[in-house]
Amino acid sequence: MTPQTSTHTAINWDAFATELGDIETIRDPIQVAKLSKDYYYFSPILKTALDDKTGDLVVRPKTEAEVLQVARACVANRVPLTVRGAGTGNYGQAIPLEGGVILDLTAMNAVKWVKPGLACVEPGARLAAIDRITRPQGWEIRMAPSTYRTATIGGFIAGGSGGIGSVRYGQLRDRGNLHALRVVTLEDEPRVIELRGDAVQQVNHAYGTNGIITELEIPLGAAYPWAEVIVTFEDFMTASRFGQRLGSSDGIISKLISVHAWPIPSYFAALQTALPAEQSAVLLIVSESCLEPLGELVKEFGGTITAEKGAADSKGSALGEFTWNHTTLHARNVDPSLTYLQTLFPYDPELKLLEEMYHHFGNEVMMHLEFLRVQGNIVPAGLQLVRFSTPERLDEIIRYHEDRGAFIANPHTCILEDGGRKRVDRGQLAFKAKVDPYGLMNPGKMRGWMEGSE
Amino acid sequence: MTPQTSTHTAINWDAFATELGDIETIRDPIQVAKLSKDYYYFSPILKTALDDKTGDLVVRPKTEAEVLQVARACVANRVPLTVRGAGTGNYGQAIPLEGGVILDLTAMNAVKWVKPGLACVEPGARLAAIDRITRPQGWEIRMAPSTYRTATIGGFIAGGSGGIGSVRYGQLRDRGNLHALRVVTLEDEPRVIELRGDAVQQVNHAYGTNGIITELEIPLGAAYPWAEVIVTFEDFMTASRFGQRLGSSDGIISKLISVHAWPIPSYFAALQTALPAEQSAVLLIVSESCLEPLGELVKEFGGTITAEKGAADSKGSALGEFTWNHTTLHARNVDPSLTYLQTLFPYDPELKLLEEMYHHFGNEVMMHLEFLRVQGNIVPAGLQLVRFSTPERLDEIIRYHEDRGAFIANPHTCILEDGGRKRVDRGQLAFKAKVDPYGLMNPGKMRGWMEGSE
Ligand SMILES: Cc1cc2nc3c(=O)[nH]c(=O)nc-3n(C[C@H](O)[C@H](O)[C@H](O)COP(=O)(O)OP(=O)(O)OC[C@H]3O[C@@H](n4cnc5c(N)ncnc54)[C@H](O)[C@@H]3O)c2cc1C
Ligand SMILES: Cc1cc2nc3c(=O)[nH]c(=O)nc-3n(C[C@H](O)[C@H](O)[C@H](O)COP(=O)(O)OP(=O)(O)OC[C@H]3O[C@@H](n4cnc5c(N)ncnc54)[C@H](O)[C@@H]3O)c2cc1C
Repeated sequence: MTPQTSTHTAINWDAFATELGDIETIRDPIQVAKLSKDYYYFSPILKTALDDKTGDLVVRPKTEAEVLQVARACVANRVPLTVRGAGTGNYGQAIPLEGGVILDLTAMNAVKWVKPGLACVEPGARLAAIDRITRPQGWEIRMAPSTYRTATIGGFIAGGSGGIGSVRYGQLRDRGNLHALRVVTLEDEPRVIELRGDAVQQVNHAYGTNGIITELEIPLGAAYPWAEVIVTFEDFMTASRFGQRLGSSDGIISKLISVHAWPIPSYFAALQTALPAEQSAVLLIVSESCLEPLGELVKEFGGTITAEKGAADSKGSALGEFTWNHTTLHARNVDPSLTYLQTLFPYDPELKLLEEMYHHFGNEVMMHLEFLRVQGNIVPAGLQLVRFSTPERLDEIIRYHEDRGAFIANPHTCILEDGGRKRVDRGQLAFKAKVDPYGLMNPGKMRGWMEGSE
Repeated sequence: MTPQTSTHTAINWDAFATELGDIETIRDPIQVAKLSKDYYYFSPILKTALDDKTGDLVVRPKTEAEVLQVARACVANRVPLTVRGAGTGNYGQAIPLEGGVILDLTAMNAVKWVKPGLACVEPGARLAAIDRITRPQGWEIRMAPSTYRTATIGGFIAGGSGGIGSVRYGQLRDRGNLHALRVVTLEDEPRVIELRGDAVQQVNHAYGTNGIITELEIPLGAAYPWAEVIVTFEDFMTASRFGQRLGSSDGIISKLISVHAWPIPSYFAALQTALPAEQSAVLLIVSESCLEPLGELVKEFGGTITAEKGAADSKGSALGEFTWNHTTLHARNVDPSLTYLQTLFPYDPELKLLEEMYHHFGNEVMMHLEFLRVQGNIVPAGLQLVRFSTPERLDEIIRYHEDRGAFIANPHTCILEDGGRKRVDRGQLAFKAKVDPYGLMNPGKMRGWMEGSE
């Protein structure tokens, strides 16, 4: 099969919108431009590359039948289609490189059913909205990005990787963290395919390049009564070792272990009373029932608990919104020249490579860690804040890490394989060849496809 | 302080019982002999050593006040006191070496309160009885021995180590798996001491040598809808590798991963239809919501699911009662000459030492593994079945393991430090010196104390 390039430049968009009948469409250029963007500007590289990209028409279907209708219209007219959830991705995943239709799925947001440990949802359901329905039954989504309040489940699966909860359940890619998908194809006659079991990996984290997800079956975790705690330490490595030990403490139920070297805590305006100058801070979400043993562990490491909020107390800022990429957001609010890295350190309870990197880069790369579970082991992921100078220096920093065994998921590219994956996923590529023969879906994002069509 | 030896041989037991007023006592020798024993006979060594040991009087208090009264009488008369729960220990922990009072706590069995993730219980509460109260609220005890239906929580804490659930929450000794204890002392004026936080370790797993536990605050885990599954494999090492991978699969919620080399499955009479000849078997308890991804993992390892029971289906044998030391029980029912080992293998996802041991001993040491979490890592514990020949050969087998880095918790001794601990616990010893100055509690079980009194 020879993938074809789309030829949509001559499209009459008003006629196209009319063709879609009752389906909601948006043609207002300001709105369309807004709905063509995400948080790509966290990266100075992507900012330059993607600033002028925009779609032509936003379409907002309410049902799978409407999605099928849009798919049919796009195929018939050979029009590119880029799916959009809340548009909170960091790598320009949702930005259309070749214009065309932005398929906004936020109106397809039903929670269809909840069983013990499982839920069936539509892709546009916001993560926090899912929890609002499942929590009273004792369940919650297993992991969430810090954009939890706005992000959609479809966008999280198609464009995210993990987050708050990953210290218990690993990452989205791990077997068991996604049960089933319904996907609308862009074949000559678009149809719905159901994927279950390992087959979901064909579409999981594919940036919407090979199918429109219209329904998801996701596993749920037990909803513990979560408490939020801030612990501070004189030095960063002690804070990190505390994080590593807490993650490995089988008797203490943690959901978030987020470590911040000074001066990162100084960027968290709303938390200042709990963040003494010069101290490294650890932001935690743990089961309220585990606060007592947590206190003993803090004592063992010589830390200080500076803030504690019980599960019933909803006053104040949600601590999760200072972690994961919200850390970057707060830092950039203070200093917009900052950018970031995404690093997975190898499993090592002694954290030797982390320590070396910390000392090597000093103030140029400020350490921000999120602990997570990788194949059963507790490992720190770095979302370090980088004082950006030039693209060349950024590459140098990345290479320095990679040469020493730290894995970098480059957040400065919008191409799937150049980010976290590193190599072409044959399964995803083959699935694209089947369901998107004309290469209309989010064109320019899957390297394997582009190379095949060269 | 010089510990004293008790001198109770001249006690008039009828008068002693009368002194206790309304508190229930048992003097019938057959009953007393029965209530002086546990499952020590799993070990041919302990069987010889402990067969003739018996208490003089069983006392069964209903309240902490009654416990204090018994403590007072024992101290006044310098009478040894051995606490007893259900008497299901395997090492003769509950067998009085110097006679005296058997303090049976099974009548103190209230569940005092349940909060999300925590419960407060009396020591004589049976583990299954606690779950019956907490489960409807979404919670359950985190880990349980396979004697779950009969064993008491006091006996589990004082004499056990872990079990079904340890693959999630680690062992009882891990920080966070025991929150608080109330303990009655055997001082001149017995009193109640409350221990919280790390201080509980002074009494945790001390075989009732340094205080009578009268109340416990224990953490609870989330009650998933547990399903039971049997998977069989052509060869034992594939079964073991499957177990290791399942334990490390962060997206699949497991509660029990129990691996049995052939011919062990042949000892499980009630499960024969699901256990084909010559196959190694893996007995599993996993969240019902995870059966689908589990099926994919089984496929990857070339296993066969031969039985599956949903959470709502209570027909048939509870699978847990073929695991942990119930494996030994079933094997000994068929061949009473069998005994067992308790081995903790070092953390190694490749299972190299396990493989070496498996091939080295062949049929003399049959492999039975229980996977558990140790400091965050998934590790197999061996409860190998040993074809017993002589005590010398048993020692040789143990030394062969230890010399190669496998840790043996010797189940052929009733002395605390000679079993799993290996060294005197200074904290427990100091606590004993304080609360049991006359050395009346379960005498002969704590080596540190005996050496101090030589
Ligand atoms: C401050 C901040 C913090 C963040 N923290 C995290 C974090 O902790 N962890 C994390 O993983 N990410 C994080 N992100 C990235 C992002 O917020 C999440 O991945 C989020 O889940 C994306 O959801 P969305 O609805 O915004 O998706 P979008 O940005 O709208 O889409 C993401 C990708 O998925 C595709 N897509 C969306 N819906 C569908 C569908 N139904 N079918 C097929 N393809 C689809 C889009 O085309 C796009 O390629 C963060 C971002 C920011 C700005
Ligand atoms: C078939 C079989 C399977 C088993 N499987 C496991 C297993 O998976 N994991 C495991 O850990 N164990 C296991 N065991 C051992 C034992 O069943 C458990 O440890 C059980 O929890 C002990 O509880 P019990 O009430 O029977 O205690 P008992 O045997 O009555 O007492 C155990 C010890 O605790 C002391 N004690 C009891 N109550 C108190 C108290 N209130 N205060 C102070 N001291 C006290 C006793 O003096 C004794 O030293 C198994 C045993 C058998 C026979």
